[in-house]
Amino acid sequence: MRISARNQIKGTVTEVRKGATTAHVLVDIGGQVVTSSITNDSVDNLGLKAGSSVYVVIKASDVMIGVD
Amino acid sequence: MRISARNQIKGTVTEVRKGATTAHVLVDIGGQVVTSSITNDSVDNLGLKAGSSVYVVIKASDVMIGVD
Amino acid sequence: MRISARNQIKGTVTEVRKGATTAHVLVDIGGQVVTSSITNDSVDNLGLKAGSSVYVVIKASDVMIGVD
Amino acid sequence: MRISARNQIKGTVTEVRKGATTAHVLVDIGGQVVTSSITNDSVDNLGLKAGSSVYVVIKASDVMIGVD
Amino acid sequence: MRISARNQIKGTVTEVRKGATTAHVLVDIGGQVVTSSITNDSVDNLGLKAGSSVYVVIKASDVMIGVD
Amino acid sequence: MRISARNQIKGTVTEVRKGATTAHVLVDIGGQVVTSSITNDSVDNLGLKAGSSVYVVIKASDVMIGVD
Repeated sequence: MRISARNQIKGTVTEVRKGATTAHVLVDIGGQVVTSSITNDSVDNLGLKAGSSVYVVIKASDVMIGVD
Repeated sequence: MRISARNQIKGTVTEVRKGATTAHVLVDIGGQVVTSSITNDSVDNLGLKAGSSVYVVIKASDVMIGVD
Repeated sequence: MRISARNQIKGTVTEVRKGATTAHVLVDIGGQVVTSSITNDSVDNLGLKAGSSVYVVIKASDVMIGVD
Repeated sequence: MRISARNQIKGTVTEVRKGATTAHVLVDIGGQVVTSSITNDSVDNLGLKAGSSVYVVIKASDVMIGVD
Repeated sequence: MRISARNQIKGTVTEVRKGATTAHVLVDIGGQVVTSSITNDSVDNLGLKAGSSVYVVIKASDVMIGVD
Repeated sequence: MRISARNQIKGTVTEVRKGATTAHVLVDIGGQVVTSSITNDSVDNLGLKAGSSVYVVIKASDVMIGVD
């Protein structure tokens, strides 16, 4: 499936931390680490574990800009 | 201000495209380009233009994971 | 690509309305019509038009519940 | 209260799964099942349980489009 | 309709600015002004104009915390 | 850091409730209480506790409008 979300960045899972219903997945996208919060069910369905090749997918309207 | 959003990645603005009320800001974060959709007012307030040093700021719950 | 978003519902585009930078896409998901707001660029990249077979994709954390 | 969110679809709760602070609520909207992630407090306040008549409420900007 | 979103704050519309498809609605919630970005269609459906009594409705997961 | 999110409202934390991975933070913004759902990690990093001076930060596109 191709998806409308503007940002789709290749990376590698470095860590999966499951909570009660929600998991945190850390993804290395080439030096930078991105944290994703998804359901435990999604982690299981996609078979995510450290070393998995993935995309981080983010809608343009969910990206804010900060300036020092 | 420090902020609770888990993802704060340094980058450089490469392009600003203003619409009627909403702008698209493209940010290079080290080879990858991220698209951000924010208000025209925010572009003006932060003084964003090509070359600006910025952070892209994204909540963990707004980051999805895709697998090929 | 398979994606972590919990909700992926098959439907058919009934209308595409482009704005300055943002488009509204109406999708019939079996009697119910869902409105999606995405970038004009995404409409073009995915080649969306009335009659296109698509999925509406929604994260579980973006679905609220209302009661009369 | 009437609300600005473009998508308000009638359905029936089929299951409520509570976590530590966050619950997953499954809603049948006429053959399709939608998963909603809301706070345990909201589940209690709205009195949600299997069989409850509800609306799933989703902003247009939270609906992505996917194509095979 | 009662809704699962945790934050529902009473206020008064002070200004409505329509764009091509998206409007900005400013709401005074007791000294503080909140900006909302919704569709032009929602503005028309709800009959919003300066002076309208409204609620600003925000999911808990969309509220970030900043510290100086 | 200055940030593009349109809404940045000063307040005081009244309560922090940690879950398995996600915390709920209650903030008094001058009589009104706003609930924020952020990661436990963010609570720790920002050192949030009852009495902390904070800003609630909300994107304009995450603010819905309701009418009675």
